[in-house]
Amino acid sequence: MQATMIYGPRDIRFEDRPEPKIIQPTDAVLRLSATCICGSDLWPYRGIADTAEPTPMGHEYCGIVEEVGREVRNIKPGQFVVGSFATSDNSCVICRDGYQSSCVQREFMSGAQAPLLRVPLADGTLVATRDLPSKELLPSLLATSDVLGTGWFAADAASVKPGRTVVVVGDGAVGLLGVLSAKQMGAERIIAMSRHESRQKLARDFGATDIVTERGDEGITRIKDLTKGIGADSVLECVGTQESMMQAIRSARPGGFVSYVGVPHGVELDGAGLFFAHVHLHGGPAPVRRYLPELIDLVLNEKINPGKVFDLTLPLDQVAEGYRAMDERRAIKTLLQP
Amino acid sequence: MQATMIYGPRDIRFEDRPEPKIIQPTDAVLRLSATCICGSDLWPYRGIADTAEPTPMGHEYCGIVEEVGREVRNIKPGQFVVGSFATSDNSCVICRDGYQSSCVQREFMSGAQAPLLRVPLADGTLVATRDLPSKELLPSLLATSDVLGTGWFAADAASVKPGRTVVVVGDGAVGLLGVLSAKQMGAERIIAMSRHESRQKLARDFGATDIVTERGDEGITRIKDLTKGIGADSVLECVGTQESMMQAIRSARPGGFVSYVGVPHGVELDGAGLFFAHVHLHGGPAPVRRYLPELIDLVLNEKINPGKVFDLTLPLDQVAEGYRAMDERRAIKTLLQP
Repeated sequence: MQATMIYGPRDIRFEDRPEPKIIQPTDAVLRLSATCICGSDLWPYRGIADTAEPTPMGHEYCGIVEEVGREVRNIKPGQFVVGSFATSDNSCVICRDGYQSSCVQREFMSGAQAPLLRVPLADGTLVATRDLPSKELLPSLLATSDVLGTGWFAADAASVKPGRTVVVVGDGAVGLLGVLSAKQMGAERIIAMSRHESRQKLARDFGATDIVTERGDEGITRIKDLTKGIGADSVLECVGTQESMMQAIRSARPGGFVSYVGVPHGVELDGAGLFFAHVHLHGGPAPVRRYLPELIDLVLNEKINPGKVFDLTLPLDQVAEGYRAMDERRAIKTLLQP
Repeated sequence: MQATMIYGPRDIRFEDRPEPKIIQPTDAVLRLSATCICGSDLWPYRGIADTAEPTPMGHEYCGIVEEVGREVRNIKPGQFVVGSFATSDNSCVICRDGYQSSCVQREFMSGAQAPLLRVPLADGTLVATRDLPSKELLPSLLATSDVLGTGWFAADAASVKPGRTVVVVGDGAVGLLGVLSAKQMGAERIIAMSRHESRQKLARDFGATDIVTERGDEGITRIKDLTKGIGADSVLECVGTQESMMQAIRSARPGGFVSYVGVPHGVELDGAGLFFAHVHLHGGPAPVRRYLPELIDLVLNEKINPGKVFDLTLPLDQVAEGYRAMDERRAIKTLLQP
């Protein structure tokens, strides 16, 4: 088969690769229905994260089960499944507590920008639908695999509840789906920080009530103006830079909740500043597996349409163009068709 | 009157000071029944925090109301009261949410190592008992003013609940009362990190089930050994240094809760490390006022005896010796009798 590899900054190649096979008896191999490029894929693409050796790319996926290992009990060939970017046994004490992305057996997935994918710990990682979904629902089902699951975790970790005022820092796909998630969880007011018109529009479609274009001190002033001078109840940090993290912490009220779901790059938090900010802080790799059953149901019942974040669809072999479009912010998120 | 001032590192003076008077109509003036020295008073004493000018010391207090301003409604002369180290109106939106120590009108108290004390926002800051308490209860009532309230917040912010496994980092008075608080909140296992025999003993008296004397990597290994290899549900950081903060974060399981209640000095948190630790982090100045009614009741009903942290009692005019004893770790906490 041909699949996606990164060789270094801005060096994405679609090239011959061995077909994945069952290695462990708990594995499954999927034929992917759709895959995509993640905002986090841009870290190595831009050279901000190192690429030590040629590396298979992609960790968001849905598709049809081709084959399962002999110890797989619940997942069966022919089923349509969605999985998380982190594998999990879904049975250890950490999984049972809802933190499957820190499962004692966790592996981070890679190699999903390909037609076929091996998924370890299939029973604990994958969620199957009852029937094969219609083609129209594929983008939204694919979104549950990471970008929606991560936005949902951002809202949950920031304790979004009915009536709350929420700020979302970051207008990438995760931030936009953080808006959708906050809306689903009943937030009364959702303030999206965005400078890009097309993203502002999508944020409003997903439920944003206010848009703040300012950043830094001016951004904080605008947020305070909109929140009786005290800051928001919940703030979702969906970028991962020092600037965005400080924007988030300073936008929350004392006693408020700040979540962060993008791997922080070069972020240092000053202890005393955090202390007097008086916020709750929670984040990390989103435990998507916890939310998958609920999110898949919301999509199948057409309650939500997270697939709208895919504003560019390309055949898989044009993956390099997909990266370029996202890097240059011509696209919010690229869906790839194997 | 004579009261306590700090002039610089290790320069505590008990000297003539003007008697406090009502300044704002919402003030009260108290005649203190007991006061004490806080672990945080050692930061300027040791020169780790600057003393820009001679400064009145002390922020833990209980006593009899001498006089109130004309707008004070609920607090009356002759009542016995306990107050927080942070003033609060107890009515703003932040106070109503339980974060009185970040009240929009907050002032940090000082000048309590004295016979008389002015307390701003008396109605919102002070809690009166129905009757005058017996002298035996004074140490425990004084403890509710800060050190117990702070330990209690540490346990609450670390989400201690029945059945949980808890680690307490720091064997100062706050850490020891964090142990007491965790016990009251139903923790099943309470691991106190302490190297000092007298403090270990008090920790066990307050409810610690295990003592860990190791620190750093060895300390983490011991904690993991005691927690099925994954770390504790709740960790209370009661010191405020880089070492103790990292000890706390690394002792928690993924999805666990870490609180921090001492003003961090020189603490920097690495964003990526915190991300993959996957913990909840919450702390700041303890909103003691939120807990005061409940804590005072627990003391008056003799359910708890937090006053045991005072292992040295001195007349107020020997305050300088009280600081020395705590600095040299000869005393856990010094009670001062005006």
